[in-house]
Amino acid sequence: MRQKLFIIFIMLSFSYFAQISEENNSVISEETQYCIDCHYTVTPGIVADWENSRHSKISMKKALQKEKLGRRVSVNEIPSEVKGEVLIGCYECHSLNEKLHTDNFDHFGYNINVIPSPNDCKTCHPVEVEEYSMSKKAHAIGNLKNNPTYHSLVKTIIGKSEFDGKMVKTFEPTSLTEGETCFACHGTKVEVVGKRIVDSELGEIELPELSNWPNQGVGRENPDGSLGSCTACHPRHSFSIEVARQPYTCGQCHLEPDVPSYNIYKESKHGNLFSSLGKNYNFEAIPWQAGKDFQAPTCATCHNSLLVGSEGEVIVERSHNFGSRLWERLFGLPYSHRQPKSGKTYEIVNADGLNLPTTFSGLPATHFLIDEGEALIRQEKMQSVCTSCHGTRWAENQLKKIERTNNEVDELVNTGTKLLQKAWELGIADKSNPFDEEIEIQWMNMWLFYGNSIRYATAMMGPDYSTFKNGWYRMKETIQKMKNTIDKN
Amino acid sequence: MRQKLFIIFIMLSFSYFAQISEENNSVISEETQYCIDCHYTVTPGIVADWENSRHSKISMKKALQKEKLGRRVSVNEIPSEVKGEVLIGCYECHSLNEKLHTDNFDHFGYNINVIPSPNDCKTCHPVEVEEYSMSKKAHAIGNLKNNPTYHSLVKTIIGKSEFDGKMVKTFEPTSLTEGETCFACHGTKVEVVGKRIVDSELGEIELPELSNWPNQGVGRENPDGSLGSCTACHPRHSFSIEVARQPYTCGQCHLEPDVPSYNIYKESKHGNLFSSLGKNYNFEAIPWQAGKDFQAPTCATCHNSLLVGSEGEVIVERSHNFGSRLWERLFGLPYSHRQPKSGKTYEIVNADGLNLPTTFSGLPATHFLIDEGEALIRQEKMQSVCTSCHGTRWAENQLKKIERTNNEVDELVNTGTKLLQKAWELGIADKSNPFDEEIEIQWMNMWLFYGNSIRYATAMMGPDYSTFKNGWYRMKETIQKMKNTIDKN
Amino acid sequence: MRQKLFIIFIMLSFSYFAQISEENNSVISEETQYCIDCHYTVTPGIVADWENSRHSKISMKKALQKEKLGRRVSVNEIPSEVKGEVLIGCYECHSLNEKLHTDNFDHFGYNINVIPSPNDCKTCHPVEVEEYSMSKKAHAIGNLKNNPTYHSLVKTIIGKSEFDGKMVKTFEPTSLTEGETCFACHGTKVEVVGKRIVDSELGEIELPELSNWPNQGVGRENPDGSLGSCTACHPRHSFSIEVARQPYTCGQCHLEPDVPSYNIYKESKHGNLFSSLGKNYNFEAIPWQAGKDFQAPTCATCHNSLLVGSEGEVIVERSHNFGSRLWERLFGLPYSHRQPKSGKTYEIVNADGLNLPTTFSGLPATHFLIDEGEALIRQEKMQSVCTSCHGTRWAENQLKKIERTNNEVDELVNTGTKLLQKAWELGIADKSNPFDEEIEIQWMNMWLFYGNSIRYATAMMGPDYSTFKNGWYRMKETIQKMKNTIDKN
Repeated sequence: MRQKLFIIFIMLSFSYFAQISEENNSVISEETQYCIDCHYTVTPGIVADWENSRHSKISMKKALQKEKLGRRVSVNEIPSEVKGEVLIGCYECHSLNEKLHTDNFDHFGYNINVIPSPNDCKTCHPVEVEEYSMSKKAHAIGNLKNNPTYHSLVKTIIGKSEFDGKMVKTFEPTSLTEGETCFACHGTKVEVVGKRIVDSELGEIELPELSNWPNQGVGRENPDGSLGSCTACHPRHSFSIEVARQPYTCGQCHLEPDVPSYNIYKESKHGNLFSSLGKNYNFEAIPWQAGKDFQAPTCATCHNSLLVGSEGEVIVERSHNFGSRLWERLFGLPYSHRQPKSGKTYEIVNADGLNLPTTFSGLPATHFLIDEGEALIRQEKMQSVCTSCHGTRWAENQLKKIERTNNEVDELVNTGTKLLQKAWELGIADKSNPFDEEIEIQWMNMWLFYGNSIRYATAMMGPDYSTFKNGWYRMKETIQKMKNTIDKN
Repeated sequence: MRQKLFIIFIMLSFSYFAQISEENNSVISEETQYCIDCHYTVTPGIVADWENSRHSKISMKKALQKEKLGRRVSVNEIPSEVKGEVLIGCYECHSLNEKLHTDNFDHFGYNINVIPSPNDCKTCHPVEVEEYSMSKKAHAIGNLKNNPTYHSLVKTIIGKSEFDGKMVKTFEPTSLTEGETCFACHGTKVEVVGKRIVDSELGEIELPELSNWPNQGVGRENPDGSLGSCTACHPRHSFSIEVARQPYTCGQCHLEPDVPSYNIYKESKHGNLFSSLGKNYNFEAIPWQAGKDFQAPTCATCHNSLLVGSEGEVIVERSHNFGSRLWERLFGLPYSHRQPKSGKTYEIVNADGLNLPTTFSGLPATHFLIDEGEALIRQEKMQSVCTSCHGTRWAENQLKKIERTNNEVDELVNTGTKLLQKAWELGIADKSNPFDEEIEIQWMNMWLFYGNSIRYATAMMGPDYSTFKNGWYRMKETIQKMKNTIDKN
Repeated sequence: MRQKLFIIFIMLSFSYFAQISEENNSVISEETQYCIDCHYTVTPGIVADWENSRHSKISMKKALQKEKLGRRVSVNEIPSEVKGEVLIGCYECHSLNEKLHTDNFDHFGYNINVIPSPNDCKTCHPVEVEEYSMSKKAHAIGNLKNNPTYHSLVKTIIGKSEFDGKMVKTFEPTSLTEGETCFACHGTKVEVVGKRIVDSELGEIELPELSNWPNQGVGRENPDGSLGSCTACHPRHSFSIEVARQPYTCGQCHLEPDVPSYNIYKESKHGNLFSSLGKNYNFEAIPWQAGKDFQAPTCATCHNSLLVGSEGEVIVERSHNFGSRLWERLFGLPYSHRQPKSGKTYEIVNADGLNLPTTFSGLPATHFLIDEGEALIRQEKMQSVCTSCHGTRWAENQLKKIERTNNEVDELVNTGTKLLQKAWELGIADKSNPFDEEIEIQWMNMWLFYGNSIRYATAMMGPDYSTFKNGWYRMKETIQKMKNTIDKN
């Protein structure tokens, strides 16, 4: 303790990071220097991580001198909140929009926000934040909570169960379990619920007490009211594009059994090449040149990065609206369907009056889904990525396969749905909650796990997920089990 | 579009890659240069990948000047089809044996094959292609399709099912689903089924229309009639040995639950060392020196690479007949058994008249399997790999363990078989198709997943696969389930 | 053969490694040089691995000249068994304490131990070996074998089963299967069971015959009577700290479904960062500086490495008593509970007289578990690791979440236990062996797999393991299955 205190004292008396600023005529602000002087010792990992970041190496003025395609900021001039020569340090981000921040607190004389939010990042990265706000990710909380069907599914899965000797009763999930399961990825609602005093080497510090935190879910509701969490993919405090472009990042949420895209990527030829040779790829280049910077794609390559060809010509534009190169939705629902028009999927109403993009028998809620024209535009975008490395026919055939696989899987799920309906008719199960009984869970396994697997396995070419691993094999096994249950009753 | 066209135009007027050829007095052929001039822009990933390849850096003449053990080609003199000073570019491979290629088409005045095949690679790599043709891999389509038992298994697993309110009917699998499941790895039959016109920046191009493609399965039947797909392990267009030697390549097909060798490798000490330190290994050295180039083996090390010791002495020869260092077959069938003599396993006939290497009760079809003498030769080969890094006693004991584990697993599967036979006797299931009912699927799980896991887990030392993960735990659980089903009926 | 013999002959006549010793005035001992002269050719991988080791580069004298925090040896002066200037080679380790080694044998005139043991490593690393001897790892064999409940579980899972047409009989597991399943990780009892003559290029060699070997389980009982296997984490013959600090090492045993910590780490933000950027980390630095040497932790960071802050101040001390920064035990038992005081968990006796830390209904055997005070000390240690990179409130909240998740999971398992007790009451299952019948296995799945997953998923932040992958989803599914079985009977 005393040793730590002594070190802090030493640190306060000189500025360790002064040299960084001199190198390129950019400067660390006085406020940020004050942060670092303490936090260099108190939370060395944070400071070191920031030192590795782009933020610690370039001022807004320098950033805007770069050629447009090579920029990481999307403002066209220096925002009023930012000093042009100043490096983007602790204070530059943690002090923004303090009026909006219920998590703002007095920290040794400075007003500091605990959680910088997309609305703060927007100061320098407005295009990215704007795009993101249109994605399903930004609305990931509402997409579960505001949809009664999904909400019922969530409650059934993560509500506590008690057995009283006769009945199994299910209770509402606790906010803890919500935050540790579905909403760990979807995002929690983080609120200031009080203040608390914490001891530190420099005396007592009064800090805001936050509910449902730590959390970094993609749709997090922040103490400033904004939605989203940039750190989900650009982890603080290096906010690295290198990390965001590697598949491990997407793999934190998009993984088997429910969204097996990461696992299927790893198993695919693309994933094999990345695993074998990715250590030589340039994950920092902006724009990202196909063939030169990488020879096999990662998730970001196909889904959202700005790609250029061998002469610097744009192949596809960057987008932080993550579904915007996708025309079909493959997971999370019994049947594949056109991508929804809006990121707020809870606004969809299907012919059965449910907030789902298709009915249980597969009829699409067309009005809420993109049309053929938009689907074709998106297919062309994706195909232009494919044809960076594959012939036109190769890419066209691959796209056709995806469509045909989706159709076959949808039919197979429909067989399961018919079996379930039979079970309901026969009184084997009670349809009031379609997610809680054994035969209903079998049906749910069919689309929540197996259907997704087969669809993704074709789309991203990882055939074991199509076959034995949560694929056809499990589909057929489940159909047999459901049929057996019906026959026995 | 116009931008692209302009760039292509520029490219056509000078030769970007001229400098490569000058470096070592090897030249890019005029035809290949013509390919590159366009494809540099049209498919930059392909050109960049080739640039990273050995093919773009060495002519056949230079290749033959290397010391024999260090060569990647297996011809002894320059083949008549190849010009000695020419680098191995697009045209050199895509123009070979055009008479055999039904996928040959006129491409701006050149006759181009869409799919170069093993028969084309054979021009410079005859020994590898010859060896490969003897492997089970080369016959991977026939080994499923020409074996009625396997074919019935395939149909049961991947045939569509419909429920008409009373019965679940199963249909023949579509060729799409075949190609996206079993035959994604085993290989599809790729045929020219017509022609199609595709728009390009340089006008319309008439291309052959190929069925069941894209596919890179190891036993692919190619438009020239040859079997196999070198790109499965040496992915185009770098055809890298570095990729082929990394476990991710094998892991595309050899993975849990049906062939968990990749997963078990990753969990083993060998895999741990590769994951921890493999970034420092030399995956390009030919020959591959144990201890110097790598300190822990990958799949290729033990199964097919040419290995030398500290003085360059040969430890084992390279082989592209992939089972040729193996004496026992661990997967894909209820019981372990001696390796088949021929790669065409569908030619086996057992005592029950089935094309399987053992009967359902475990009796081997000895005539079709290698004998004790050949088994010992192969064991010695493998042991010489082990003893590069392990003492003799260590290796001997390890080999004994494998044998004993196989025996125990076979007995356990036999317990399942006896339970199934009881279920058949009692009319609980109908033996006409042994793969489609619930208790039959349980039995199938025992050998298709759990037996394989335990056997591989001993062979490659990944004990969780022997225990909880598809191992003994699941075996015993399944035996209980089968017994319960029998008792209830 | 002759070629090999010739090479050996050449090697014997000059000393290949002479140059290593000259570089730093340290010398290879004459005995070790003699070993290398042969083994350089006979087992090149071993010699190369050693060449990469610290042991081949530094003598004890030099090691002790290092500043204390930077040392890898924990003796304070040169031990009598070691010559100060000598590099730590083959003979230095394989000749120690020969009187204790029943596996000692005459090898061309030298007395060599086949298996160097923790007791031998203790010569230079006494603190590490002493700490390790207090861990649960060191007693991993007894913790299974001397605990009748666990022993019954083991026997049920891995004992052979036979079906005689009416009954399924279970037999005692063979020592082979024990060694290939549970005791592969826990460790086998390795004993000398005879001698055997092996042919070599230099003539016949008489070697001790060892039972239950190869094995590298953490609690291995060695031929010298000691417990443990340092090579489990510091694989021979480089004994690398770089390997031990990478998560792959822990992942060999601590992996799903029974101990999913490795899998959850990989899925977490920590794991994502390690996978994305770990190639730039310094895994060899001693002490290990948070922020500088690494920016995201691996298993070793949080659980046992010596960590220092930005000014070299100690954050936590190194410990080879692996549970010593943990206050709660999350796996292997139905309910979470305080860590046991002793590494010998088989000495615990609970209120039901079983050697388990809680009763089947969750009552803790308090006397054998650490108390609140010790728990708090350990929490503070762990929190000081967290706060290297996270704020205090972040870390505190995370710790609270763990406690609350453990409570919720324990309640859920208890619902399963009540269902099982009902089944026992109704005669659906027989409680004499609580691990062998279908409904009992369902209950076992709940805590052995699903409960562990949820607890670890919160502790290490990998939410899919809390939700769909062996998490709440499976818990609720299992409760439904158990209830269904009860209702049908």
